[in-house]
Amino acid sequence: MSVYQATASAPVNIACIKYWGKRDTKLILPTNSSLSVTLDQDHLRSTTTSRADPSFEKDRLWLNGKEEEIKEGGRLATCIKEMKRLRREVEEKSPSEPKLSSFAVHIASRNNFPTAAGLASSASGFAALVSSLAALYKLPATPSELSLISRQGSGSACRSLFGGFVAWEMGSAADGSDSYAVEVAPQSHWPDIHALICVVSDDKKGTSSTSGMQRTVETSPLLQHRIKNVVPERMKAISEAILAKDFDTFARITMQDSNQFHAVCLDTDPPIFYMNDVSRSIIALVTEYNRVSVENGGKLKAAYTYDAGPNAVIYAPKENLKEIVSMIIRYFPQAEPFKDPFGLFANESLGSGRVVPGFNEAVAKPFEVGAVKGLIHTRVGDGPRVLGSEEGLLGENGLPKQLA
Amino acid sequence: MSVYQATASAPVNIACIKYWGKRDTKLILPTNSSLSVTLDQDHLRSTTTSRADPSFEKDRLWLNGKEEEIKEGGRLATCIKEMKRLRREVEEKSPSEPKLSSFAVHIASRNNFPTAAGLASSASGFAALVSSLAALYKLPATPSELSLISRQGSGSACRSLFGGFVAWEMGSAADGSDSYAVEVAPQSHWPDIHALICVVSDDKKGTSSTSGMQRTVETSPLLQHRIKNVVPERMKAISEAILAKDFDTFARITMQDSNQFHAVCLDTDPPIFYMNDVSRSIIALVTEYNRVSVENGGKLKAAYTYDAGPNAVIYAPKENLKEIVSMIIRYFPQAEPFKDPFGLFANESLGSGRVVPGFNEAVAKPFEVGAVKGLIHTRVGDGPRVLGSEEGLLGENGLPKQLA
Repeated sequence: MSVYQATASAPVNIACIKYWGKRDTKLILPTNSSLSVTLDQDHLRSTTTSRADPSFEKDRLWLNGKEEEIKEGGRLATCIKEMKRLRREVEEKSPSEPKLSSFAVHIASRNNFPTAAGLASSASGFAALVSSLAALYKLPATPSELSLISRQGSGSACRSLFGGFVAWEMGSAADGSDSYAVEVAPQSHWPDIHALICVVSDDKKGTSSTSGMQRTVETSPLLQHRIKNVVPERMKAISEAILAKDFDTFARITMQDSNQFHAVCLDTDPPIFYMNDVSRSIIALVTEYNRVSVENGGKLKAAYTYDAGPNAVIYAPKENLKEIVSMIIRYFPQAEPFKDPFGLFANESLGSGRVVPGFNEAVAKPFEVGAVKGLIHTRVGDGPRVLGSEEGLLGENGLPKQLA
Repeated sequence: MSVYQATASAPVNIACIKYWGKRDTKLILPTNSSLSVTLDQDHLRSTTTSRADPSFEKDRLWLNGKEEEIKEGGRLATCIKEMKRLRREVEEKSPSEPKLSSFAVHIASRNNFPTAAGLASSASGFAALVSSLAALYKLPATPSELSLISRQGSGSACRSLFGGFVAWEMGSAADGSDSYAVEVAPQSHWPDIHALICVVSDDKKGTSSTSGMQRTVETSPLLQHRIKNVVPERMKAISEAILAKDFDTFARITMQDSNQFHAVCLDTDPPIFYMNDVSRSIIALVTEYNRVSVENGGKLKAAYTYDAGPNAVIYAPKENLKEIVSMIIRYFPQAEPFKDPFGLFANESLGSGRVVPGFNEAVAKPFEVGAVKGLIHTRVGDGPRVLGSEEGLLGENGLPKQLA
């Protein structure tokens, strides 16, 4: 008897032009286009195995070993239903294909980064889900077509269907058929873009992005101006900067858009705050680091961006990462040694000496150990990968391996 | 020989609709109208004595006993020159008047609140300067006419020429002749409005408002929308709320506008932050305090507002102050006992027990002693006062008394 199973992994993405606001909350259609960098799956990924079997009684899903309810009409159910619909089209065209669309599926998914890291796992998670089902169902769909479905799981998940630099075109159709991700440039176009994720400790429970963005849509007078007058220009300008590998422009727009996103959160009633004093200090450090470079006739050397939480992601050309990591560790001493996946500090000690000549050390005060509780050095990466069966997460019995 | 001397005091004001951005930096003409509450001089004031004497060699000014340079073409020099010009008009009409406009002046000014409190003293200071010179020169000028001059010392100083609720109409004339303060309602119209100033500790040196606001004008895409589309409506709505003594609307607009001001600061490149984690926590407390009231069918009970710094000013009807002070002290324990100028806590202990029934205490965590380093309870107050000669700050020798 055949086993119908496939495994895929998908990457995390971090937006440079932020998605904030839905014009349709059910279909997850945004109020503006957005653009992100896909991060390397070698460091951060969701892996998902899907199996279809006539013996399964119902669709089931396990996340990090724990079964999640698939609520009728919910986002998970919608994605699975849409993928089955595409499979049915395949079966109708090729009657010899097994009728997988009529079988229930078992799905096991796992993130290789702790939830406590505060990194949004919904983007990589829904992208991996859709990618594994697409492999299982042998769909002829393009990544853009699949992004239409992952979008309905979590908006930003549509951007994790591509590697490199990815735009989510907001579209205008009421059914969402033109609201999908497109590749602006692949990883190979500009592999030099690295990222340092600063995981910031926060004892305050933040507003969820789902509820927060709708409160902004309902109450922020500034959001409408952003949507209509600011984002369209920035999308065009940053796409051109990426194609031209113009880091200076890329960095400027990325920082401006992060700040504007947090500005419209603050303009919400009641206001939403995601950044804290640690986040502000990292901004001050990157601003000073760039100021020194520009004042010496150079260009911007790093760009911070913040999603709906206090964590910083710092994008920079690889050559600057050593200075940046040293600067961050100097102000935010680490409990654990820096995991140095790119061998920046082969035999050197780290975090001593001045940051760069001319750097005004007074722009921030050094924090206690733990204020930045972890650093992850990664880079721009590729899109979803279909993995071999040896990497499957479901055991022979169709249950997650760790539970089998 | 006659002594020509006058002493006046002037109040602090805290804006509900924020002034941020100049269209003319020399004349200090704003990019939008603003509106403030004048605070009671019994608690916070600047006092200024001006004397004109033919023996004085040049204009001199002492602030809190320390001589300040009067730079040619600077803001102080401009205000003094303008006041002398008005005096000259008086002398031309009434030739019997002494020619004070041809004498140099000595000016001594003092604030009754420490500079370290982080309260802007430029508004009360320039208002007291202009008021004392107006008394010295026996000018027939109205407060609005004087506000045209204090405006050129410090924009917000024009609003300290009136008590109660004061609008600064931005005007449109290039020479600034229609950019002055007007009274929306006097103190006596709504004396029930009290204020709690929470002086917040901050080790970070903030961006000066003078340089900060021009950076916002130059770089924030959102500011233009605020100026054109948001402020005009809010000015109208909050003026109506004041006339109707509608605290609910007053509070809502005050909080929204404080947040929008800080939002455009954040939208500035590089971004400007004035609020810190303590400020954010006070916002969370006031938001929760209001939520409980509204959920029980009531109205908003308090409104926070933040100027260009981390200090909170909480406006509320007097009847709510006891709850508000208790709430703040509970989360921000005080080193000094609360100075209780209105006798809220006659014989009661303070800061124990729950805030109000239904209050979710988890919205903020209690801070260490010193995070809010002082509390000042005050209320809406009157405009500048001309004081008796016994309160003069200049000795017989024409120098500040403490130096005499």
